[in-house]
Amino acid sequence: MINPSSVPVRQSSIRAHNLALLLNTVANSADPPSRAALATVTGLTRATVSALVDDLIAGGLLTELDPPPRTGAGRPAAGLALTAAGPAGLGCEINVDYLAACVVDLTGAVRQRFTEHADQRPAAAPDALAALGRLAARARLAAEAEGLVVAGMALAVPGLVSPTGLVRVAPNLGWQDVDAPTLLRGVPEIADLPVVVDNEANLAALGELRVAGAEATFLYVSGEIGIGAGLVIDGELYRGVRGWSGEIGHLTVYPDGRPCRCGSRGCLEQYAGQEALTADEPLASAALGIALSAAVNLLDVPMIVLGGAYALHFERLRAGIETELRRRVLTAGLAPVTLRAARLGTDAAVRGAADSVIRGVRDDPAGWLRRAG
Amino acid sequence: MINPSSVPVRQSSIRAHNLALLLNTVANSADPPSRAALATVTGLTRATVSALVDDLIAGGLLTELDPPPRTGAGRPAAGLALTAAGPAGLGCEINVDYLAACVVDLTGAVRQRFTEHADQRPAAAPDALAALGRLAARARLAAEAEGLVVAGMALAVPGLVSPTGLVRVAPNLGWQDVDAPTLLRGVPEIADLPVVVDNEANLAALGELRVAGAEATFLYVSGEIGIGAGLVIDGELYRGVRGWSGEIGHLTVYPDGRPCRCGSRGCLEQYAGQEALTADEPLASAALGIALSAAVNLLDVPMIVLGGAYALHFERLRAGIETELRRRVLTAGLAPVTLRAARLGTDAAVRGAADSVIRGVRDDPAGWLRRAG
Repeated sequence: MINPSSVPVRQSSIRAHNLALLLNTVANSADPPSRAALATVTGLTRATVSALVDDLIAGGLLTELDPPPRTGAGRPAAGLALTAAGPAGLGCEINVDYLAACVVDLTGAVRQRFTEHADQRPAAAPDALAALGRLAARARLAAEAEGLVVAGMALAVPGLVSPTGLVRVAPNLGWQDVDAPTLLRGVPEIADLPVVVDNEANLAALGELRVAGAEATFLYVSGEIGIGAGLVIDGELYRGVRGWSGEIGHLTVYPDGRPCRCGSRGCLEQYAGQEALTADEPLASAALGIALSAAVNLLDVPMIVLGGAYALHFERLRAGIETELRRRVLTAGLAPVTLRAARLGTDAAVRGAADSVIRGVRDDPAGWLRRAG
Repeated sequence: MINPSSVPVRQSSIRAHNLALLLNTVANSADPPSRAALATVTGLTRATVSALVDDLIAGGLLTELDPPPRTGAGRPAAGLALTAAGPAGLGCEINVDYLAACVVDLTGAVRQRFTEHADQRPAAAPDALAALGRLAARARLAAEAEGLVVAGMALAVPGLVSPTGLVRVAPNLGWQDVDAPTLLRGVPEIADLPVVVDNEANLAALGELRVAGAEATFLYVSGEIGIGAGLVIDGELYRGVRGWSGEIGHLTVYPDGRPCRCGSRGCLEQYAGQEALTADEPLASAALGIALSAAVNLLDVPMIVLGGAYALHFERLRAGIETELRRRVLTAGLAPVTLRAARLGTDAAVRGAADSVIRGVRDDPAGWLRRAG
C-alpha cells in the first residue's frame, strides 16, 4: 500500500528502488535486454545502470548471456537474464498430520518438494520443529546440489503468529508461545537462514495468488479443524497491522450460540469447523455463507476461494453458501460473487511460503545483496 | 497496493513515475531544493530533472523561488516549491439535511468552505444536484479569485456508487440510479471539471486520515440513518474492487433477526442505525460491538473511528461496544483495539472529497499536465 511517489527520498532508498526496477525490468522483458536498453527504458544514466547491473550480477541475481551471433555492423551487446542458479526460497509447513518443505527458484519454478506424513499432535513443539528442520535441511541440500542458493525460509503454521515469528497460539497443534525461529536454528544445516513464520491461510492465499493472476483480489478460506482466511488485494497479501487478519473462524455467526474455546459464543468454527462440518453440512454451509457475506459486505471482494476440507466438500457446500450470499450481500444483485475451490489443494501453503521468500528478494534486491555480500 | 518495482516499464510510465517522484521530493523537503539537489537525491540525470521540472512549473505545480542572497563564491541556485496558486481540489457533499462545498489547495490547506442547510428529501435528485452544483460553482469562483485552479471535483453521497459515478442506491435520499456527473454538468460554471462521486464514508475516512497520520490503519464507521464504513490501510483508502466496500450496515448481526429493507434479516442497520439507536442505546452498542468484532477479526485493524451520530453519542456507546470487542475479538487479549470518536465531525466527508482530488494530482502529476496542457 506504499505509494511509490511517497517513498522517503534518501540515496540508499533510491538505489534500492533502482535495483528493484532493473531486476523487474529484466524479469518482465520478452528478450534479454542489454544494459543500453535498460538505460533507455528506465531513464537512468548508462553509468548508473552499469554499476547497479554489476551489483546484481555479483549478487547472483542476474546473469550476462552470450551475445547473439554478429549479423551486421557493430558488436552485438550481451543480454541480461535472471540467474537460474540464483537465490531460491525454502517454504515449509507444519500441520496436524504432515510436514512439508519445498524450494522455488527466482523464476517461481518448484525445484524440490519433500513431504513427511505423521501426526504432529503427540510431539512436543521442539520435537516437531526439529523434525521439520531436518526435512527443510534435506530440501536445502538437494537445491544447493543443483546450484541454487537458498535465500531464506518461510514456515506456515495453523495459528496466530507475532511479527517476530513467535507462534502465540496454534490450537490444533496444542502450541502456545512457541519460539519457532529459535527452535529451528537448533538444526545446524539451516541455522544461518533468515526465518519468517506466518499463518498457513495467509501463505496458502499467496500460493493461490500464483494461479489466480498477478493483480487478483480474493478471500482464501481454509477449512481445517480451525478456519483461517487470507485476504489478497490487487495481488498483495493483506496481513493486518499485527499479522492477525483473517480470523474468520472466530467471526460471530450466532451471537448467543454455541460456546467456543476462545471464550466467545457463536463463532463460525463451532458451525463450520471440520468436526461440525462432518456432523451437519447444511448448517455448516449456512454459517459459512453468513460469515462470507460479512466479509464481502465489508471488503467488496469479487471472489472467494475455498481451501482445505472445503475444497474437498466444495460441490456439496456451494448451494447453501450461495443462498446466503444472495440474501445477505447488499450488492449481490449488482454483481455476483465468484465462489471456487482452491486449485493447489494441500500444496497451497508450502508453495506460498516459498514464493514469499522469492517475492522478498525480487522486491528488495538491495536487501539480498547486503546479506549475500 | 501496486508494488513500485512491478509497475510496467514503458517510457511514458517512467516519465510519470519520475514526475511524481520529483513533485513529492519537493513537497517533503524541509527547504526548497535546487534542480541540482533533486538530481543528486533521485539519481536522475540533471537534464532529465530539468526537463521534468520545467514541465511541472509550466503546469502550475511547482514554482521557482528567488535564490537566497549571495553569501560566498558562486551564484546561489533557485529553490523549488509547491505553487500556492496551483491546482486545488473541490470537495462537495450532499446529505439528508445539508449541502457542502470546500476547496483545498495542493498543500492540503482549506481555502474555501460553503454550507447550505436544507432538507434534501423532498427535492428530486436533479434539483438537489443543481443546488449542489450552484454551491460548488460559488466555491470554485471564490477559489479562482484567489489564484487557484480547480483541478477536479469529488462528491460525497450516502449510497452505493459505481466507478462511473452512477449512484446506484442512496436510500436516505430516495435515489436510485442517479447519474450524478451528468446532472452536475448541467451547471455551466463547473461543467468542465472532472467529477468523481464516492461513498460518503469512504471520503470521510480520507478526511480523518489527514488527522490520523499518513500511514494510519483504521476503520471509520459513520452512523447516520444508514451506516457506512471506510477502511484505511497504511494511509490508503481501500475501496474494494467495485468501490462497494464498507457496507457494514448490512452485516448480519442476528441471522434470524429484524427484517431489513435490503431484503435480508438481522442487518446491523436495524439495531444501530440512527432510529434504532434513539430507541435503545444498549442494544445498539451491543450490535455495533458484534459487527465491529467481525471487522477486527477479519482485518486486524488496530483502531476504529466512530463518526456521524456515533461521534455525538460516543461516550454512551463506548462501554457496550468495548465489552463485545473484548469477548469476540480473538486477539483482544494480545492487543486491545483503540476506539475513538471522529475528529473532523460533520466536515470529514467534504474535506476528504477535496483531499482526494489533491491526492490524485500529487500521485499523478503527468495526468494533470496532460489535462492542463
